[in-house]
This record gives sequence, C-alpha cells and structure tokens, in this order.
Amino acid sequence: MTLIKVGGKIVEEEGSLQTLLHDFAALPGKKVLVHGGGRSATHLAAQLGIESKMVGGRRITDADMLRVVTMVYGGLVNKNIVAGLEALGVRALGLTGADMDVIRSDKRPVGEVDYGYVGDVRRVDAQGLASLLNAGIVPVLAPLTHDGRGQLLNTNADTIAGETAKALAEAYKVELVFCFEKKGVLRDENDEDSLIPLLDKASFQRYVDEGLINGGMLPKLKNAFEALEAGVETVRITKAADLAEAGAGTRIRCK
Amino acid sequence: MTLIKVGGKIVEEEGSLQTLLHDFAALPGKKVLVHGGGRSATHLAAQLGIESKMVGGRRITDADMLRVVTMVYGGLVNKNIVAGLEALGVRALGLTGADMDVIRSDKRPVGEVDYGYVGDVRRVDAQGLASLLNAGIVPVLAPLTHDGRGQLLNTNADTIAGETAKALAEAYKVELVFCFEKKGVLRDENDEDSLIPLLDKASFQRYVDEGLINGGMLPKLKNAFEALEAGVETVRITKAADLAEAGAGTRIRCK
Repeated sequence: MTLIKVGGKIVEEEGSLQTLLHDFAALPGKKVLVHGGGRSATHLAAQLGIESKMVGGRRITDADMLRVVTMVYGGLVNKNIVAGLEALGVRALGLTGADMDVIRSDKRPVGEVDYGYVGDVRRVDAQGLASLLNAGIVPVLAPLTHDGRGQLLNTNADTIAGETAKALAEAYKVELVFCFEKKGVLRDENDEDSLIPLLDKASFQRYVDEGLINGGMLPKLKNAFEALEAGVETVRITKAADLAEAGAGTRIRCK
Repeated sequence: MTLIKVGGKIVEEEGSLQTLLHDFAALPGKKVLVHGGGRSATHLAAQLGIESKMVGGRRITDADMLRVVTMVYGGLVNKNIVAGLEALGVRALGLTGADMDVIRSDKRPVGEVDYGYVGDVRRVDAQGLASLLNAGIVPVLAPLTHDGRGQLLNTNADTIAGETAKALAEAYKVELVFCFEKKGVLRDENDEDSLIPLLDKASFQRYVDEGLINGGMLPKLKNAFEALEAGVETVRITKAADLAEAGAGTRIRCK
C-alpha cells in the first residue's frame, strides 16, 4: 500500500490540488492520503485577528487556534479533497484521529515551550484503518488527533504520516511518500539540479554535519528513518507534480 | 435504529452539547446523529465580514459562505461532537455527504431565488450507512453533501435527517427524532405547557389552517409526514434535554 503525505501549499492551490488528486487517484492498490493545511490556517487566523506563533516550525495552538485548525484541516481542506477524489471515482473517507478513534495522542507536556493543544501520537489503530482499506475505502487523514477524553489536538502531518505508515507496516508492504514543492532532498536548496537520488543513514549524517541538510527537512528525514526502522518498505521524498513518475525524488534507505 | 437530529443551538453551547452527547451515548442499539450549526456559521461569517442572507429560513450560500459552512459544519461542529462521543465510548465517525459518497445531491436550480451552493438530496447510500452501523460505527452527519463532480453543497440538516431516515427504513425499523429547544410542537409557541403530544395529518392540517403551526415548524413537520409515508416507523419532535425520556415531546403519525 501507498501512503502519500502532501503539504499545505499543494492542497491549498486549486491547480496543484487537481493535479495531485488525479495522480493520487491513478495510483494502483490500497492507499492513504495525509494532508496539511498550515497556510490556510495561518490565513484564516489572520483574518480573525489571531496571531500565528511558530516555534521551530511547529504551531503554538491555544484554544482559538485549535478552533481555526479544526475548521481548516478537518473541514475546509479535508472535505474539498474528499469531494475531489469522489469525483475521480475514489471511495474517499475524511478522518481526523478522533473519527473511529483511529489516532489517539497525548497533549504535549509543557517544557521550555508550551505548545498548547498539540498532540504527540500515542497509537494508530492499524486494524481499524486496515478494515477500511480492505473494504476499498481510501482514508484521507487530517492533521488532528484526540486524547480519548474529548479533547481534539493539533498534530504535525509528517508525524501522522510516519506513525500511520509504521502501524500499517505490520499488515502491509508500505511505501511512504512525502510530497512537497521541491524535487526531493537537494544538496543546494536553491538548485533543483542538485537532487540527492538516494540517501542512507551514513550519507544523511554526513550532509547534516556539512550543514547541507537543515531546517524543516531534518524532522522529515528523521521521521523517514524511523519509519524504515519500524518496517516501512520504502520512503520517498518528491515533488508532488512528479508523484506519477516511478522513482522520482529522493529514495531513503537505512543503509 | 434511532436517528437523532439536533439543531445548532444545542450543539453549539458546551453545556447543552454535553447533556445531549451523554443522552445520545446512552441510547441503545444502532444510531445516527445529524447536526446543524447555523448559528456558528453566521457568527464566523460575521467575523470574516461575510453577510448571512436567509430566504424563508434557508441560507443563501455563495462561494465564501460555502467555505464558512464547510469549516463550521464539516470541521468545528462535527469533529467536536465526534471527539465528545468517543470520550463516552461511542465509536463515532463524522461524515459529510461527500465521504464515501453517502449523500449525493443536485445544486438547487435557480428559480425566483438563487440559493447558490445549496444541494437538494438526490440519494442516500443506505447500504453504505448500514455497513457502518452493522460494524458498530455511529455515523455523525454534517449538513453538507456533494454533487459527485467535486462540488460540496450546503444542505438543510432536517432534510438530511428525513432523507437518511427514509433510506434506512428499507433495512431497519427507524425512529426519527428532531431535537430542538422547545418541548415539542406547541399550540402556543410561548407556552411550554401547550404541548401537542400526538399529531396526525388531519390535526396538523387543522392547526395550520388555524395559524397555530407556522414558520420553521412547517417544513420540519412536512419532512416528518414524508418520512412516515416512506416507511419510517416513528417520528418525534422533542426538547433535546428530554431525549432520554421515552415518549417525551410530540409524536407524529400519519393517522
């Protein structure tokens, strides 16, 4: 099965969203789509006079911001993707972690930073997702989870993708694909020709030491290696527009 | 099986929502919850500088308003209900009509009024809903549908409740309950002691002729009689707080 994670920028622009949905609909076999929506959340928050505070790329989520992300991720972005996929003949089902209790999380403890209503994934119900997949249903996961006591929690979409891939790896041969706006992992982030086609743990460490891999790519790659170590078959980081192209982007492997 | 429709006011206030969720969770057997959310939509729209235009109690839904109701109904209200039910041990699944294509609708033709992105229900996938119910899942339906070509459509929650009850009546003995803020159908809408405990078609017509039943209660009762004629076993209109009380409110029957 294939688990595709698409970032906010792709699902929030009508043109790139339509391309993505067509490519995703054309993928054979069982599949799951995990989406972001941060830009729309920031935009709506600004319209409502709510300031978006980020620490290390992660959103501080107070009660007002939780309402915003619940509306944007769980409603606007998720339901437009679902309607778009249904139009392409995909039996899509939009889910947050609260729906059927598929992803339970714990509110992140307050440390140096109080992230607010942010959840760290405790467990993914692989059996519940598998029963949907086996019934021909394509889950579309919004980056929201719950604590099992009625509290919704904002949860990083890359983490949801990684944890879901790991949980499903017990039952399926899983390919995890992170789609974003660049061709893959680049040696020089301003040069699309500097794609690293294959990345293992040793070369990853070397690039990190040399300062070539940094910023938002670091947690994404850590997620990728964790997923591989937990039994995910393949992890790929690629441009959304190249999704249909087999082997495009950067392939990650343990060694 | 029991299909409960709850109006906006009840699900939008934390206190009444919690009572409702407890009563709903305690209902035995298969069940479906259909919710509104109009007040929150109007509130968010106002915050965003979008004017809410209503004609005969129905919302005119332009592209901006569609975004608002998709966020509020599909995200905010639906996901808080789902998380609340999960906390009470209910295996809840939030759905719009687009999810798994459960409710397909047609954009309302432009007549004297252009309602915009408003859908009239074409068909409810009773089999899809039945397979969820038989798996122990409790569908929580938001008042949004789709046209099958990627367009989400705003759809009246009473209509969704009525049409879903009718579709499920083919497979189940269905009780349809409309919950709102009053005790039931009242002879005098300002006197809670004037409850009409039993209403049949003849007495309904008499009350309409006398002008005692009017406004928003009219389409609700027309929905109720239509549902009964299509095979729904019982229709009840009651106060949400009385949901747990058997036989509370107004019982509707054909004759």
